[in-house]
Amino acid sequence: MSPILRNDTFLRACLRQPTDYTPLWLMRQAGRYLPEYRATRARAGSFMGLATNPAYATEVTLQPLERYALDAAILFSDILTVPDAMGLGLSFEAGEGPRFERPLRDEIAVAQLQVPDLERLRYVFDAVRSIRRALDGRVPLIGFSGSPWTLACYMVEGAGSDEYRHIKTMMYARPDLLHRILDINAQAVAAYLNAQIDAGAQAVMVFDSWGGVLAHDRFAPFSLDYTRRVVQALQREHEGRTVPCIVFTKGGGPWLESIAACGADVIGLDWTCSLADARRRTDDRVALQGNLDPAVLFAPPETVAAQARAVLDDFGSPARADGRLGGHVFNLGHGISQHTPPEHVQALVQAVHEHSRRRRR
Amino acid sequence: MSPILRNDTFLRACLRQPTDYTPLWLMRQAGRYLPEYRATRARAGSFMGLATNPAYATEVTLQPLERYALDAAILFSDILTVPDAMGLGLSFEAGEGPRFERPLRDEIAVAQLQVPDLERLRYVFDAVRSIRRALDGRVPLIGFSGSPWTLACYMVEGAGSDEYRHIKTMMYARPDLLHRILDINAQAVAAYLNAQIDAGAQAVMVFDSWGGVLAHDRFAPFSLDYTRRVVQALQREHEGRTVPCIVFTKGGGPWLESIAACGADVIGLDWTCSLADARRRTDDRVALQGNLDPAVLFAPPETVAAQARAVLDDFGSPARADGRLGGHVFNLGHGISQHTPPEHVQALVQAVHEHSRRRRR
Repeated sequence: MSPILRNDTFLRACLRQPTDYTPLWLMRQAGRYLPEYRATRARAGSFMGLATNPAYATEVTLQPLERYALDAAILFSDILTVPDAMGLGLSFEAGEGPRFERPLRDEIAVAQLQVPDLERLRYVFDAVRSIRRALDGRVPLIGFSGSPWTLACYMVEGAGSDEYRHIKTMMYARPDLLHRILDINAQAVAAYLNAQIDAGAQAVMVFDSWGGVLAHDRFAPFSLDYTRRVVQALQREHEGRTVPCIVFTKGGGPWLESIAACGADVIGLDWTCSLADARRRTDDRVALQGNLDPAVLFAPPETVAAQARAVLDDFGSPARADGRLGGHVFNLGHGISQHTPPEHVQALVQAVHEHSRRRRR
Repeated sequence: MSPILRNDTFLRACLRQPTDYTPLWLMRQAGRYLPEYRATRARAGSFMGLATNPAYATEVTLQPLERYALDAAILFSDILTVPDAMGLGLSFEAGEGPRFERPLRDEIAVAQLQVPDLERLRYVFDAVRSIRRALDGRVPLIGFSGSPWTLACYMVEGAGSDEYRHIKTMMYARPDLLHRILDINAQAVAAYLNAQIDAGAQAVMVFDSWGGVLAHDRFAPFSLDYTRRVVQALQREHEGRTVPCIVFTKGGGPWLESIAACGADVIGLDWTCSLADARRRTDDRVALQGNLDPAVLFAPPETVAAQARAVLDDFGSPARADGRLGGHVFNLGHGISQHTPPEHVQALVQAVHEHSRRRRR
């Protein structure tokens, strides 16, 4: 039996239920800005050595919670675990970012692509179980995956990209091939997230990191439609609680209304969107997550605190005139930078908790 | 006396006057995708050798016009000429992009910054005069500059950047220093563009390439307010004709209404915005320029043509029910990629001209 969850503020905000304050966590909160992370990473020998070892993954997942009063933990893993399990040959070269040995560039490679055996991702589910045990009910654990489109970007490009030449060429020249990849990815991502939920993830997040590079008339057919398939295939309850689903499309502000209708409980926003505008546009039918510019954390602590308060004030009170509630999960608009001074994060956490409690009175 | 301008379709569309078809030009149309450009570049020895020599600049500016029935020429130059003239020490390292030897990082450097003597930019104005002579009235010549904010990004970062750490730290920690840089930049850019107009530029464009990286509440005070100052300081007429001004903010879709109110005649759009939506949001008070995804040009010519027609259909007829006219200048949503097959550009130009003529009937 699982221990009782002692802080469910994050889960309640995701579901637009009353909370005493605005919960927060930070994308990439277990990461290179923390010296203890860099120490574990050095012991593990490589990034994938860290991500594939449940004991190390547990250790680094919990590190930011030891320093800061964060309201959720997020599984330490990589978004490319699924394509790696599909046999594309993931590697990380120093200072180069991820790279696939066998990117999908032709009809034969695409035809051979299959939903991977989840057994090949067992290390991820083992990590989820191990982290849940280590958390012992402190805060909920978030599982995650890349979106079908975002995974496809890496799978076709073979590496990070500035202009997405290969995948966009495929999209315009051979949309049938890309739709096959996206279909397989949607099935794989849904199965992967459901297995994370079975292993103990109490919320899940889909990162559509590259949805924003699509043209306005391509975003729905090539990204959102497949994200929606994933969301609709997720189990909604586990261990007697609702499992909230968060969808984050970097650069997705222009398409917020349609993203908010995909079935997710929470929509992540980057800093180019005002939360007040986003609430108006979605009429609080979803909770919102975000959206401080991570660069604010380079400024002195008093500026960090002031900017955090501005984000909370932009969202406003969760309570509406009509008696319904909105929901806000405080986060950055993108992953925390490796150059962030750890003590600035302390100022952020404190400001969010204090100011949001004050606003609730 | 200047020769008569034989094709003023571009200028007319910018000013929302009737045209027989939709004019087009392409951002970075004189560039590396053309073998003749690469040949001239090799003779010049370096990128700056090309940009600072009026004879070479004239040669490469005219190259795309020899191949394609484009409706405008754009001055071949670099957006970093102004900060270079300010003494920041511009260099281009192979495969590295531009770099400044002396980026602005402290109070003393910022205090010493001055509007440059335009004499140091004489090679640009000489190029404008030389290109006008070579064009001999074929199509109009567009001059350009980076926006105050975009120039400041390079001046403070010292090079291209992923996270804009230095300039955003300055923005949040020492906004006074950044405002001083932006103030100097606005004065310098206005003087630079007015001198280009004096030398013969028949339209000018301000590239706010990095406006889209700003948070929603920072875009106006740190980018748009200074772009507006530039636009409002420009001479509106020269050689008896109105000189249209184009403002392009990459990623500026969310702020279109406020950008459209800055005084520019034309607003450039990237591909994340629908032109139909943009017309609704601006009520045709400005002309629109854009917005094909440059990646479409990697697809086969028939797909290029179909996508070009889709952009024209998205804009619709310039004529409105109330008798007013909208204006559309066809362009890409960003610079043309060096990997573009030149024959695909031919298909694009033909499709835009043919389909828009057909739509006008």
